[in-house]
Amino acid sequence: MERVCSRLSASFAKDPQILVGPGDDTAVVFIGGSQIALTTDSQIEDIHFRRRWMSLFDLGWKSVAISLSDLCAMGARPIAIVLSLALTGQEPMEEVDQLFDGAITACKRFSCYLVGGDVARSPGPVLVVSSAIGVVAITPWTRSGAKEGDCLLVTGCPGEAAAGFLLLEKGIVAPDDPMTLRFRRPEPRLNLLDPLLSAPLHAVIDVSDGLALDIFRLAQSSGLTAEIFVDQLPLSQTLRDACSQVGADPIDLALTGGEDYELLLTVPEEAAVRVRQTIEAQGVPATVIGRMTTGRAGLVVAVDEGGRRRILSGGFQHF
Amino acid sequence: MERVCSRLSASFAKDPQILVGPGDDTAVVFIGGSQIALTTDSQIEDIHFRRRWMSLFDLGWKSVAISLSDLCAMGARPIAIVLSLALTGQEPMEEVDQLFDGAITACKRFSCYLVGGDVARSPGPVLVVSSAIGVVAITPWTRSGAKEGDCLLVTGCPGEAAAGFLLLEKGIVAPDDPMTLRFRRPEPRLNLLDPLLSAPLHAVIDVSDGLALDIFRLAQSSGLTAEIFVDQLPLSQTLRDACSQVGADPIDLALTGGEDYELLLTVPEEAAVRVRQTIEAQGVPATVIGRMTTGRAGLVVAVDEGGRRRILSGGFQHF
Repeated sequence: MERVCSRLSASFAKDPQILVGPGDDTAVVFIGGSQIALTTDSQIEDIHFRRRWMSLFDLGWKSVAISLSDLCAMGARPIAIVLSLALTGQEPMEEVDQLFDGAITACKRFSCYLVGGDVARSPGPVLVVSSAIGVVAITPWTRSGAKEGDCLLVTGCPGEAAAGFLLLEKGIVAPDDPMTLRFRRPEPRLNLLDPLLSAPLHAVIDVSDGLALDIFRLAQSSGLTAEIFVDQLPLSQTLRDACSQVGADPIDLALTGGEDYELLLTVPEEAAVRVRQTIEAQGVPATVIGRMTTGRAGLVVAVDEGGRRRILSGGFQHF
Repeated sequence: MERVCSRLSASFAKDPQILVGPGDDTAVVFIGGSQIALTTDSQIEDIHFRRRWMSLFDLGWKSVAISLSDLCAMGARPIAIVLSLALTGQEPMEEVDQLFDGAITACKRFSCYLVGGDVARSPGPVLVVSSAIGVVAITPWTRSGAKEGDCLLVTGCPGEAAAGFLLLEKGIVAPDDPMTLRFRRPEPRLNLLDPLLSAPLHAVIDVSDGLALDIFRLAQSSGLTAEIFVDQLPLSQTLRDACSQVGADPIDLALTGGEDYELLLTVPEEAAVRVRQTIEAQGVPATVIGRMTTGRAGLVVAVDEGGRRRILSGGFQHF
């Protein structure tokens, strides 16, 4: 993806109409006085979910939620979304209706319009691509603005979604078990948009591919090293319970699990408590989990209570 | 798709911010004083193309072109596009680069920014979903505005793309044969946007799924019957030559071939010659191929020189 982004950036990123080019959570273009964010994301059968444990309602919800989370991470208020479906034709009509019902329910929940889409026949796998636009009323939040000394804050409890995935994949719980909700029906943190508009956020990224990987991306984009205080990671009881059932380590899942759709923010140290309280006031957990330091761009170091350091990413390639 | 559209319309279409809801070539939403068109479309291996005869460069080009053609049919000037790819991981890096090179080349040709995308691993098939936004500076063209007595005009030579597909699929010509260009590298008719801005167009639709089917959609949306003058269909020498090689009937391919990415317009009879000349002045063929009449909504009748009438669509379901 980085290779692709650099090709695209070389071709397109210099135009003043492109406020944010390829490589962030969304692109942002300037149209008629508005900053319009545009993003696309996909959910693919047997990669992201299995038909045997993911209802099409949940798939519809999640397809919407993941693109709205990208918008949220840029500071964009969602406006409209379209879905592109590839279906085998074997799905009963009622299940296809359920997919759209899930998408519609998520759209209503997050104040976005589902304005259309495209349904194509495919030999499989089932696939949904969601593409969304939103409006950014501030300077867009990007992943590249972190400063030395910034605190790293994360919302929610990363790892819970991955734990839910493992519970489903291993058949340990029923598909509708509440422990799998964060996986099946992620909630983009759009309720934080307004409260955070005036917060001194230096960098923001959507935590979608695993906390450590997204910290790496933020650190690399910002030209800094990141230290993660592993003993500070928010490990909820839900996560611990799920981990004991699936035989996973909570810290591992929190760092590498993926599909959290939480926000990772960097803020000046003196603002960290205030920003955390602002987020918590919306009913969303928030935790300072690390800090940005000078050093090799993209180096991510896990630091434990005893001061032991473990390199999670060398800063030149993914782990 | 109609079932889906009615579900979406029931949920979302009544908001004044939604200028055009589900069911047209694009949605159009009102954002900060601008009319923003949003569309998504897909190209799926073994449904729309085969790897053995479609280069990834052409796939990249076409993925961009088909979404820009949707924008064009609404009177929208393209602004930005994102691609969502599902790749197996077996594709050599250089071929993936070629896909983006094809997309970039099409974007530059049609003055649009490729601002990002998403690459996911999939067991296959290879799939590209393109999602584009554009700006509509006029009242959006829709498929529902045709009036009784309107002439039906079509650009280009429908059927050529399908003939190219058949030549490739049957292995009759090399993948880079010029006879297959309309299939591999469709050209959305964006050069007609400015010249047609002041033309009295009542209805416009993108001809992507076969001329007869798109005429049906336009007729049904407009609540009218359409008559097609089959002897007036533009059957180019390229189409005739290809048809003789693949053993197809040129009129059949023109009516049902699909993937033409031409524009179908309805205009008042007195304006038909002027609009046709306006289009031809841009180097694009244009032909009056029928007219709109009162009658059952969506009824499409082929009329030949001798006045014989053949029903192509009964107006309640697809053929």
